[in-house]
Amino acid sequence: MGGNIIVSSTKQALSIYALGGINEIGKNMYAIQFADDIVVIDCGSKFPDESLLGIDLIIPDITYLKENQDKVRALIVTHGHEDHIGAIPYILKQMDLPIYATRLTLGLIEVKLKEHRLLRQTKLVEIDSNTNIEFGTIRLTFFKTNHSIPDCLGIAFHTPEGTVVHTGDFKFDLTPVNDQYPDIHKMADIGKNGVVALLSESTNAERPGFTPSERFVGEHIEEAFNKAKRKVFISTFASNVHRVQQVIDAAFKTNRKLALLGRSMVNVVAVASELGYLNVPEGMLVEASEVGRMAPDKVAVLCTGSQGEPMAALSRLASSNHRLVEVLPEDTIIIAASPIPGNERNVAHIVDNLFLLGAKVIYGSGSVTGMHVSGHASQEELKLMLTLMKPKYFIPIHGEYRMLHQHRILAESVGVEKENIFVINNGDVVEIRDSAARVSRKITAGNIFVDGLGIGDVGNIVLRDRRQLSEDGMLVIVLTLSKTEGTIISGPDTISRGFVYVRGSEDLMNEVNQLVIASINNSQQAHVHKWDVMKQDIKETVGQFLYAQTKRRPMILPIIIEV
Amino acid sequence: MGGNIIVSSTKQALSIYALGGINEIGKNMYAIQFADDIVVIDCGSKFPDESLLGIDLIIPDITYLKENQDKVRALIVTHGHEDHIGAIPYILKQMDLPIYATRLTLGLIEVKLKEHRLLRQTKLVEIDSNTNIEFGTIRLTFFKTNHSIPDCLGIAFHTPEGTVVHTGDFKFDLTPVNDQYPDIHKMADIGKNGVVALLSESTNAERPGFTPSERFVGEHIEEAFNKAKRKVFISTFASNVHRVQQVIDAAFKTNRKLALLGRSMVNVVAVASELGYLNVPEGMLVEASEVGRMAPDKVAVLCTGSQGEPMAALSRLASSNHRLVEVLPEDTIIIAASPIPGNERNVAHIVDNLFLLGAKVIYGSGSVTGMHVSGHASQEELKLMLTLMKPKYFIPIHGEYRMLHQHRILAESVGVEKENIFVINNGDVVEIRDSAARVSRKITAGNIFVDGLGIGDVGNIVLRDRRQLSEDGMLVIVLTLSKTEGTIISGPDTISRGFVYVRGSEDLMNEVNQLVIASINNSQQAHVHKWDVMKQDIKETVGQFLYAQTKRRPMILPIIIEV
Repeated sequence: MGGNIIVSSTKQALSIYALGGINEIGKNMYAIQFADDIVVIDCGSKFPDESLLGIDLIIPDITYLKENQDKVRALIVTHGHEDHIGAIPYILKQMDLPIYATRLTLGLIEVKLKEHRLLRQTKLVEIDSNTNIEFGTIRLTFFKTNHSIPDCLGIAFHTPEGTVVHTGDFKFDLTPVNDQYPDIHKMADIGKNGVVALLSESTNAERPGFTPSERFVGEHIEEAFNKAKRKVFISTFASNVHRVQQVIDAAFKTNRKLALLGRSMVNVVAVASELGYLNVPEGMLVEASEVGRMAPDKVAVLCTGSQGEPMAALSRLASSNHRLVEVLPEDTIIIAASPIPGNERNVAHIVDNLFLLGAKVIYGSGSVTGMHVSGHASQEELKLMLTLMKPKYFIPIHGEYRMLHQHRILAESVGVEKENIFVINNGDVVEIRDSAARVSRKITAGNIFVDGLGIGDVGNIVLRDRRQLSEDGMLVIVLTLSKTEGTIISGPDTISRGFVYVRGSEDLMNEVNQLVIASINNSQQAHVHKWDVMKQDIKETVGQFLYAQTKRRPMILPIIIEV
Repeated sequence: MGGNIIVSSTKQALSIYALGGINEIGKNMYAIQFADDIVVIDCGSKFPDESLLGIDLIIPDITYLKENQDKVRALIVTHGHEDHIGAIPYILKQMDLPIYATRLTLGLIEVKLKEHRLLRQTKLVEIDSNTNIEFGTIRLTFFKTNHSIPDCLGIAFHTPEGTVVHTGDFKFDLTPVNDQYPDIHKMADIGKNGVVALLSESTNAERPGFTPSERFVGEHIEEAFNKAKRKVFISTFASNVHRVQQVIDAAFKTNRKLALLGRSMVNVVAVASELGYLNVPEGMLVEASEVGRMAPDKVAVLCTGSQGEPMAALSRLASSNHRLVEVLPEDTIIIAASPIPGNERNVAHIVDNLFLLGAKVIYGSGSVTGMHVSGHASQEELKLMLTLMKPKYFIPIHGEYRMLHQHRILAESVGVEKENIFVINNGDVVEIRDSAARVSRKITAGNIFVDGLGIGDVGNIVLRDRRQLSEDGMLVIVLTLSKTEGTIISGPDTISRGFVYVRGSEDLMNEVNQLVIASINNSQQAHVHKWDVMKQDIKETVGQFLYAQTKRRPMILPIIIEV
């Protein structure tokens, strides 16, 4: 239990920091450090917003961990969602570290590592809520939490400077599916023994009240299955194994077989069944290709695409574009997920198409349809966690600034001292030494962009160019000059892409050519022979002309060849 | 009253069609035609979604109206929102037609026409709800409706084939601000006299119940003003004159002066005050530059930007980037508008920044904050309109497909015959002849893109290029060949934009150059001298190589110069 270390506790500090997850939703990565021992929590990815053109994924910058590689003892993963595991393959390509997680979480990580051919070389260690493990000066214990995926953990880090608690993602579902109860008694024990700092997730810190139980969704699913006279399609997050179980139960109770559509749905059901997290009655599942041949009131389809993803199963079904299954009039479609902000239009477009096919569609906010509840704690639950843990210091994590801000207000309301609450940024190091906490320094933290196979090779300049190209396209102007005379031998020729449709714009292009010739002649007369200067003049002259004519600013690329 | 026309009514048909507004939100434009008389209703624009890169605005395709210009008698505008007036300047550039609208609507149209220098040449006719006017065989009467802008009209078109009613945008606010009551008695009269077809707006056809009164918002605004100890900022739609009035009233009652920020807010308040739609107490308004010098509990600021528009006043205030006014700790900011789907992230980002400044922020859904109500009729109101009008035929308009679909279900529920409901597309012509209706034909209808000064010059090819450029950028490959030998004289040189940052990718670029040289040599040996073929080979060779190396597909532009 590291008792021999306590002696040096006045010299060595406890450090807490985030490499991702603060002031953002996604890309969660936190670390607890004492002396020379660093334990990392989660390693998530984030999807880019529409301003990051062409970027596929965002992952944390782990420069600090690489610089301190000899101190990094382990990566502990709280649960199997993408915003907590999505960056693992990319990080493992940069540094080696052993991964500790529960069985289901490891199962989902393994699928990822296989895809990236990293499974063999990575040390994976299965833990559960009873695990008690030491990494140098830091001892870890765990407690069960409840969230929209099974097998979630909260973590207590016992250090010479006191116990730090990281909640992971959680809600307090007191009537959970599959007996995944949050272990309130263990949390109470941890709190009673003293918590120096609590890191608690803030996703729903803006929402009053108490998040409804997942069972509430199950009741509505069963009711919809009961009412349906023909085929039922239901779309939800593949990783929500609890909800998947409730769909299986509803199909079983209403004598329907079930087909699975979508790669992630097939994958997750396979992993979760194999590991014992899903109970699928024998003979329940049928192939998608059989659906069309079965009596419509004897079959249901569970599919991906509840967020309107254009390539996912639901979108293909809605546009009558699925190879194996067809939506027919009077079929029932249930979208068992609320649209995440930004996805509303895609989901709405799918609903339009489903109505056009004559289907009955249950869609919209889960609070209206009963077909979705959040997996995150609302305000009263966040207050319950704060009350259970009674932390001296509080660091709200996992959320955008307004969520962290609201979580701070909640913490104050249950008695945490205002000056003991640290609303930090990624990279801020909260240092606790002799029971006193302060933000002591800043380490490297930021966004690394993944674009295709490239990790970190697309930066601000490339993105700025993409933005200009996306809005107004470009114009390449090629001309050949005589090396001896400096006169124009051929060209100028203009090639435009994404700017105007050239066949309708001959006059405009001719005027551009005339301007280029005039610009070159001016340079000649002014005895300017530097290409940079000549090119800059062409850019400015043509740019101003095109803006006056079209109010557009295409990228202008003059290419001068000397022969 | 055109009684002499009735004789020919068995020969001539009544036609109803949309040139915009069906299966979309925005770009409203409808027409009623009898014999050789066409009356057009509204002329709106629509904002592009993010897939339409660089497009500024979408307007209706009016090919059909231009082909029948001699028959088009008038444009009647129901109210002054952008989705009903935004395309007017662009349409007037294509054809001349007189515009009929109420005073405030005309005032807002005039602002637009001035900007486009079209005011002098356009015939503008002021009407009100008592106007009775004939356009050949079609006689028009009007009825007052209530919406989130004053001076709205519904229209009854009395034709030899019967009366067609177009509702415009409406709700039934029975306790409106400014005494803008919906004229239910007149609606009842029209219904009693027989309505052959009703065109009714469908925006909120998915929402159960009855939309709350605008007064509900006024009460909450006043309460927030009362509670505020320092400056109050309130942001809403400039065109919501009722809400603007309530902000003025709240400021007056709490002894605050009011400053206006944002061009559209200043414009609308000027027009609406001048025309008598706003009651601004003398000495109430102050310049923005004075705000900082006033006692914080004696001033409020009314500003644009409630949808998170990055260049609008609220966004600038939140990023401490406004020239004249500053948000300080403990100031109160009210966002008196629910975010329209697609705008949530921008609004949330502003809230984050305001919290960072230490402000108190009232934000989120209007149903929670009380700071916003819709201007559109919910289901019970739509049923009320259908009940008042008792139409034989019903055409739901103004909405995406699922809204039209839900409106159809509402119409059936109040007794409209299922086969008498026409859920149409833009361009479908509903023809009524001898009291029998059918979709008889299809006319041209569609989206025209406005990009800068260009109207309709950006089409699918340009957009496809912009999309490719936006995702993976481009690579220009220049080389000079000898005309006589076909050998490479200079180059290849590669210029990349938006693809990779070249300084980190020298090796990749060198390999590209080697591939280009090999491709040219191959062409030589195969006696290929056609440039198209040579360029195509370079494109394919380099494209495949880059995809294998990077999983990106930049646009590749080979440029071959022969000297």
